[in-house]
Amino acid sequence: MLRIRLDFSYDGTDFAGWARQPGLRTVEGLLREALTVVLRASAAPRVTVAGRTDAGVHARGQVAHVDVEEAAWGALSGLSRRTAGEALVARLGGLLPRDVVVHTAELAPPGFDARFSPLRRRYAYRIADDPTLRDPLRRMFVLWHRRPLDVAAMHDAARPLVGQHDFAAFSKPREGATTIRTLEIFDWERPTSGADAGLVLATVQADAFCHNMVRALVGASLAVGEGRRPRAWPAAVLAAGLREPAAGVASPVGLTLEQVTYPDDAELAARAHLTRNHRVPQGFSGGGP
Amino acid sequence: MLRIRLDFSYDGTDFAGWARQPGLRTVEGLLREALTVVLRASAAPRVTVAGRTDAGVHARGQVAHVDVEEAAWGALSGLSRRTAGEALVARLGGLLPRDVVVHTAELAPPGFDARFSPLRRRYAYRIADDPTLRDPLRRMFVLWHRRPLDVAAMHDAARPLVGQHDFAAFSKPREGATTIRTLEIFDWERPTSGADAGLVLATVQADAFCHNMVRALVGASLAVGEGRRPRAWPAAVLAAGLREPAAGVASPVGLTLEQVTYPDDAELAARAHLTRNHRVPQGFSGGGP
Repeated sequence: MLRIRLDFSYDGTDFAGWARQPGLRTVEGLLREALTVVLRASAAPRVTVAGRTDAGVHARGQVAHVDVEEAAWGALSGLSRRTAGEALVARLGGLLPRDVVVHTAELAPPGFDARFSPLRRRYAYRIADDPTLRDPLRRMFVLWHRRPLDVAAMHDAARPLVGQHDFAAFSKPREGATTIRTLEIFDWERPTSGADAGLVLATVQADAFCHNMVRALVGASLAVGEGRRPRAWPAAVLAAGLREPAAGVASPVGLTLEQVTYPDDAELAARAHLTRNHRVPQGFSGGGP
Repeated sequence: MLRIRLDFSYDGTDFAGWARQPGLRTVEGLLREALTVVLRASAAPRVTVAGRTDAGVHARGQVAHVDVEEAAWGALSGLSRRTAGEALVARLGGLLPRDVVVHTAELAPPGFDARFSPLRRRYAYRIADDPTLRDPLRRMFVLWHRRPLDVAAMHDAARPLVGQHDFAAFSKPREGATTIRTLEIFDWERPTSGADAGLVLATVQADAFCHNMVRALVGASLAVGEGRRPRAWPAAVLAAGLREPAAGVASPVGLTLEQVTYPDDAELAARAHLTRNHRVPQGFSGGGP
């Protein structure tokens, strides 16, 4: 078997999330179906993803791996001058709807595991808090918020959350799985130029995320940004360690997985080993925001 | 009556264009309906637009005017602290679907005519000519093109078209209307940063456009960019003055009206008078791309 790395994007609007669920339209389900056809496989191949996004959450820098028979990979190029990876991308493009795009497919380096090898995941959360900023062409991935937000207060409130903490208060618990994570970046800003000019933008980066964690962090930030809670509140919630219903979980509309970063090839296997043993004593599902 | 200026945007994907047509979903139709409700008007008010976009074409900087009874305008604020314009924007936002957004509504300066006062209109055309650039989150306004494009050739070919010319070869003729326009900008580039990084991007600006003109110009550019026609071909088509079927008309997907520029307030009426007399001897419909 050969391990293939897939880099892909999707508009989460019309998906019930990444993970396959019977009868629902999911990214995993569609991708498995398309891979089965293109690889002429007898059974749908298992696809392992870096970030298991929830319903409605988008991804622009998603990564997965799939293990493929050497013969099936070799057959992809056929008589064309394309590489097997180029052929796979082209054929998947012909099968998949326009809200999922596989950008590249290539042989993964030894030790690569899409779920356990990453060093970090980076998400963006975008909010338009002013009618003049509501762009109908970007409405699927920018949350429209009725009231103006105090971005400086949100950023201040986010400061004490950066670092290694137990994020139990900001996650949907899974039995036996640790909720200790290293939040590397949690910034709120209002960019003055570029694609997100004028919007309220969060950059949230961690080694991995607990389930619902990004949206719970954003929910707490919104409470501060609207003035419903003081700046010190999110840190107090974190310290209390209990899931705080008042924090709420922000809408998936504004959330996009932007990037997954892997170590150098030589470190891939060691990183996967470390992650598997330290973070997921009883089968944590990996990176779900 | 008071003249109100509306600034608004729409995702053209699910619209049969700007102009009202019986039984079809149009931006003008929806906007008139919403204005009728909000202004409690007995008849739908007439809405005059800067750029009459075709089916599928988008607008981010669209402008229109509507004439409103002074009493209806005054009643909008009601007991709130909002201005009439803010109230109109908020109420339209409550009625309109998410693919049309009215950003601002304000009293127009004397002499303002959304259709005849503009100095210029600017359109963008966006193309992703590589699978790695196909962003599902931007798929509604970026054309996905199968073959890589020679942007330098497209830009060279566009050079001789800039200036005042008879664009009959690049427009769908309307009887009695002149097809002489001043094309101020027609650039093709591949931006290296910003929201359009990596894409093939046209900026097309003119005092006004004939019907179908931008898409015909883009169609001719694509023929050059794919190597189907030499760089000198678009200029030859222009000079011949005859609509050239081989040029084709590019898909509306990639086309967005980005900006409409009006003169200083003191010049508005004079500009409208000039435009009306010189450009539209027998009722040209104004700015349709």
